[in-house]
Parts: sequence; C-alpha cells; structure tokens
Amino acid sequence: MLVKQKLLNRALALARGIAPSGRPLNPLWTYLYLEGREKELVIRTANEEMDLEVRLPAMGEEGGPVLVPASPFIRAVENAPGDEDEEDKEVIILIQEGQVEVRAWPWRATINAAGPEGFPAWPESDTALRTRMDAQDLLRALSQVRYAVSRESWRAIFRGVQLEFSDRGFRAVASDGYRLALFDLERPQPFTKKAVVPARSVDELMRVLRGAEGEVDLAVGTSTMTMAAWQEKGVVRIAVRLMPGEFPDYERVIPKEFPLTVTLEAEPFREALKRVSILANKENHRVDLSLEGKRALLFAEGDYGKGQEEIPVSLEGAPMSLAYDARHFLDAVSRVEGEVVMRFSGQFTPTLIEPADGSGYLAVVVPLKV
Amino acid sequence: MLVKQKLLNRALALARGIAPSGRPLNPLWTYLYLEGREKELVIRTANEEMDLEVRLPAMGEEGGPVLVPASPFIRAVENAPGDEDEEDKEVIILIQEGQVEVRAWPWRATINAAGPEGFPAWPESDTALRTRMDAQDLLRALSQVRYAVSRESWRAIFRGVQLEFSDRGFRAVASDGYRLALFDLERPQPFTKKAVVPARSVDELMRVLRGAEGEVDLAVGTSTMTMAAWQEKGVVRIAVRLMPGEFPDYERVIPKEFPLTVTLEAEPFREALKRVSILANKENHRVDLSLEGKRALLFAEGDYGKGQEEIPVSLEGAPMSLAYDARHFLDAVSRVEGEVVMRFSGQFTPTLIEPADGSGYLAVVVPLKV
Repeated sequence: MLVKQKLLNRALALARGIAPSGRPLNPLWTYLYLEGREKELVIRTANEEMDLEVRLPAMGEEGGPVLVPASPFIRAVENAPGDEDEEDKEVIILIQEGQVEVRAWPWRATINAAGPEGFPAWPESDTALRTRMDAQDLLRALSQVRYAVSRESWRAIFRGVQLEFSDRGFRAVASDGYRLALFDLERPQPFTKKAVVPARSVDELMRVLRGAEGEVDLAVGTSTMTMAAWQEKGVVRIAVRLMPGEFPDYERVIPKEFPLTVTLEAEPFREALKRVSILANKENHRVDLSLEGKRALLFAEGDYGKGQEEIPVSLEGAPMSLAYDARHFLDAVSRVEGEVVMRFSGQFTPTLIEPADGSGYLAVVVPLKV
Repeated sequence: MLVKQKLLNRALALARGIAPSGRPLNPLWTYLYLEGREKELVIRTANEEMDLEVRLPAMGEEGGPVLVPASPFIRAVENAPGDEDEEDKEVIILIQEGQVEVRAWPWRATINAAGPEGFPAWPESDTALRTRMDAQDLLRALSQVRYAVSRESWRAIFRGVQLEFSDRGFRAVASDGYRLALFDLERPQPFTKKAVVPARSVDELMRVLRGAEGEVDLAVGTSTMTMAAWQEKGVVRIAVRLMPGEFPDYERVIPKEFPLTVTLEAEPFREALKRVSILANKENHRVDLSLEGKRALLFAEGDYGKGQEEIPVSLEGAPMSLAYDARHFLDAVSRVEGEVVMRFSGQFTPTLIEPADGSGYLAVVVPLKV
C-alpha cells in the first residue's frame, strides 16, 4: 500500500511508545499488527496496560493481518530516504504472507512476519459511558496533575490519575498521600463516574492528545477506557486498562479557612526556590519560608552550607513561618504561569497553591512537621 | 571578588567535566580550588588523569586559597538570578576562611570551605617540548579521530589518541586494532615526539579547544602534556597525564596498492549504510558491499529479514565484493563531508577512506573475513 511517510512516521512514533522493549510477559507485544484494508492501513500495538490502533489513509492492494517485529519495521520506515518534511513523500508497505516489504526507492527492506494469531483483540466495551472533550483541554488537565502521581507501591491507587466525570464538569486529580494536584474543566459531563488511569497510560494518552485535532471521544467502561482522536487524516484509538477502586475522599483534607493569603509572581519565586534548595539538607530537602511584612524569605541549610533569598510579596493576614519539601513545593508552583495565590491554613496544615487567574489548577502541599 | 557571570559560568562548565562525581579515589577531587589574587580569580580542579586551571579577570578583595565542594558551588553560581545572556552581569565571590559566599542580589549562598592542604600542585614540567598550534586546527584533528579509540582493556595503549609531532607536521591517530583513523596537519613542528593521551582527557582537551580563540601553547613532557588556551578574557590551562609507551608501527598495515578505487558522495552513502544495517545480523553487524558496473550495492541479512540499497558510483578498477562491520564502516565514512574516495586493496585486506579534497583525514577499515 502507498502511505504518506509523514503520517506513517507519526503513527509509528506513537506505537513505539507502547511496544515494550526488552522481554515482555507476552512476546507478541514486541510486534506490530499490520493490516492493509480498503483505503486504509491499520497499525496496532499492545502491552499489558494499553492497546493502540492507528488507521491511516492508504492506496493499493489489501493484505494481512500480519505481525511484524516492531523495532526493525519502525526503523526501516523512519530511516527511509528523502527529506522527511516533504509533505507528499510516500512509502510502499507491501503486506504479504510471511513478510512485509518496505520500499522507498532505492531502499528496500524485507522483514519476516508472522500470522496474527494470539495478538490481543481490540478491547471493545458494550457498557461504556460516552462523552466528547476538546483534545487540548483534556491534555492540559492531564499534564497539569501528572507530576503528583505516587511512585511508591504501598498505596497502589495513587499510582494513577483519577478522572472524575459529573454534571459539574471534568476533573483530573493525582496524589501521593503527601501532596495533591487537581485540574477542573467546567464542562458538564453526561454521566457520573470516577476512573483511575495508571501513570504510564496517562503518558500515552497525552502523547496521542498532543497530535490530536478538535475533539476526542471517550468511552469509560468498568475495566477499560477508550479514547478516539483525530490526527490530520488519521484516526488513533487507544484503550487503557483502569485501576480497580478509586481515591479515598481527598476533598475533606483540603482546608477551607486560611489565616494568611499571599499573591506573588510564580516565575521569580520558582527560580528563588530552585536556588535555595541547592543548599537544602539532602535527606528531607527542607526549605523554610518566612512570610512577614512585605517579603517572603526562603532559607535552607544542609551539609554544604546555607542559602537564602527574599522576594517582595503582598500578604493578606497574619505573618507565618513554614517549612516544605523543596521538591514538592517546586513541583506545585511550576505548573502556574503568571501570578500565583498561596493560601496558608496553618503552620503544619495543608497549603493551597492556585493560579490567580483561576484556570482550574489547584495544588495542595503539606508543610514539613519539624 | 566581582566576576563576570558569563565568564565564570563558562569556566565552571569546564571544571564540572573534570571534577569527578560519586566517590573518587581522592576525596579532594570533588572540590574546587579557589583563589582570589590581584585582579584575577583562579579556579582549579583535578582528577586522576587531568588538572585544569582557569584564571578570570576579577576585581576586589584577595582571598584563599580554599577548597569548596564543586557541586553546590557550581550550582549556586549557575543558578544565580538574572538573564545569563546579559554580558555585564556580575556575581560576587567572597572567599573567606572556612567559607565562600556567592552573592547575586537577592540570592546569597554561604558554602563551607576547607583549607587548600592536600590539593594536587600544578604539574609543571621543566623538560617539556614546546609548540604552538591553531586551536581550531587541533580541535579538528582530535575530533576527527576520537571515535576510533578502543574501549577494550586488553591493549591499553589503544585507549588513547597518539599525537605525533615532527618536522613533517602534526598527526593525531587512534585505533582499536581493527580500524584506524588519522588526521594530518601540515604544520612542521619544532621537535619529534609521540605522546598518547587517554580518551577521557582528549574529550576535555576538545571541550577547552571549543571555546578557545587563536593559538594554544602545548608543552609535551615525559609523563604530562599541558595546554594553555585563551578564551575571551580568561586563560585556561589543562595538564593531562600521558600513557606510557606508543602505538605499534601502524603505517606498515596501511596498504599502498589498490586494484579498485571508488569515488562517491559521502552523505547518501552514509544514509544508505545506516538503513541497510538496520537488518544486519546483531552479532557481527555484517553489511555486504558489491561494487560492479556503475553501482555500489549494499546488502544485509539478519534474524528479522533483509535490507538492500544501491548507489550510483564511478569505479576505477576491477569489480569487487566485500563485507564490513557496519558500525566501523559508518564511523569511518561519517567524518567525511562532500565526496569520499574509497581505496580497496583486496577483499580481505584493509580499505582506505579519505575525503576527495584531501583535508588530512584518513580511515582504515578491515573487511570481515566471511
């Protein structure tokens, strides 16, 4: 089949993120499923957590389905001769029994292929709840909270991002038990549901969304969520396994009253925090924050010495001194552009961090108890 | 002392490459030696193979010498507030007993410092042979042959680059016993000497040369070579330990007679070689090259399938078929821009690769004996 090389490369870049390297549990996951149908080439890949399917416009003989080893096939296409920016550059994918040929004159690769037996079927769900969302909105929500996902194994549910659908809107939320990030989209949803997507699958959803145009279709089932996205002449479907269960009730730990509120420019504060944390204790990464008068003083001290910096701020409320894990505090502030509002509920109780423009992002950081 | 931040950052970037991370044999190597002298700041760093000294113009109080832990000091300076591209931006380095302060308002870091005792003295050499070379010429010679250095330990001398000084000129040469690369500069030298510099030290020499202006001073001693380079208002000196011994007589393995000579464009050949090698056997990386008529045919076959591509060439001599380790062949051709001349001495005897413009580069690759 004749396929536009640019589209095929983009599809294979997505597939590469999913096809496992090394020795996966199921050796078939190192293969791509290829099928030449009427006017389209279907590429599918899978791992233990996800399935991905890309359909690209293609011309010529039908063929397959076959399974072709992902790595050499992707490299044979990606490295095909010619300027990859040429919009109309085409490559020939010839799907035959036992082999797939990649041709882009004068280059020719013949790659051994296997039958499609054993490759996972597409996980269709009958009972799915369906909605549509703007691709870039969804991308924004996921990418703003992704950092707060836990890397620990002891509370497995926190290794995913919880997606919340309700008539109030859509929310993405992540936490590791010490901090929390959420992003609200004010788009009423046609159903009420909480679904927890594992972090690695969130990364792939974001990769698909980055190249997507317009809206995406979401179908949330009991154990699987599927998303269909449109990319310049191609369709991408991704199915991600959901984690069983849902987050504990985090809303009750979000304080409602704040003796002190501070507004400041996010960028210079972030830079100062980065600097001061250079000297922080290597064990607890402690940075002290003193809020008094018209300034915020950042201070850290560790084995190598000490660092400090002050930033002019406007305080509303009583002076306060707190300490944070510099990494958590920095993560939380780094998602804000422009002005940031920090609401302090107390010296040892959670601090809230939000953009002043109320764009939907909220971070909760717990001060260190030292 | 008041120092231009841009110059200091550049000096510290060099120092960072040399100061070992982790736990080195000598814990003092993780420190920087700092000394505020009249109108200059002296920064020195060392590891088991090299010493580096940078002198920067500076104003203000003298101080030191002291030893300051390299990592936090470098980070405290690099992250100092303000736009790093501002030419005139200055930072204050206050060298006191027991501590060094970094100040760039409102940022202030106080880093614990130790006395200079035990830090290696600068390895001056009385018996050195001296010469001057254009920095960019020397950089070119080193960077063209660096790839051919051996990574194996069995013939230690090949883990360095041999520098040859004679009245015929200057030559850099590297080999791993299977292939060889050399670069000749037609600059007669005032002495005759061969000196082998370990690969890691060659990398540092190149880093210094990249920022150097005009000529550099070289002093070749029996166990150490020192190089002094000038960078926009600063002086950099680097001393590298030489490896004992010299390369075996490699010139006798370079063939003199060639039944076949081929001239072709390096770039498309390199691209074709890259593609074909995707399908090569993972053990020996074999790629076959058939030269016949007006074409070169590249072919490889491995577990995944086979790849082939042909390139139009002009042959002078008898047709020939050979096989190479694709990686070695690609390395050798990758250093040539424009037209490349390949001289084939026989099916199993060394092949010579040179740029058609005779710029001084020569690579020798031995075909596979299969």
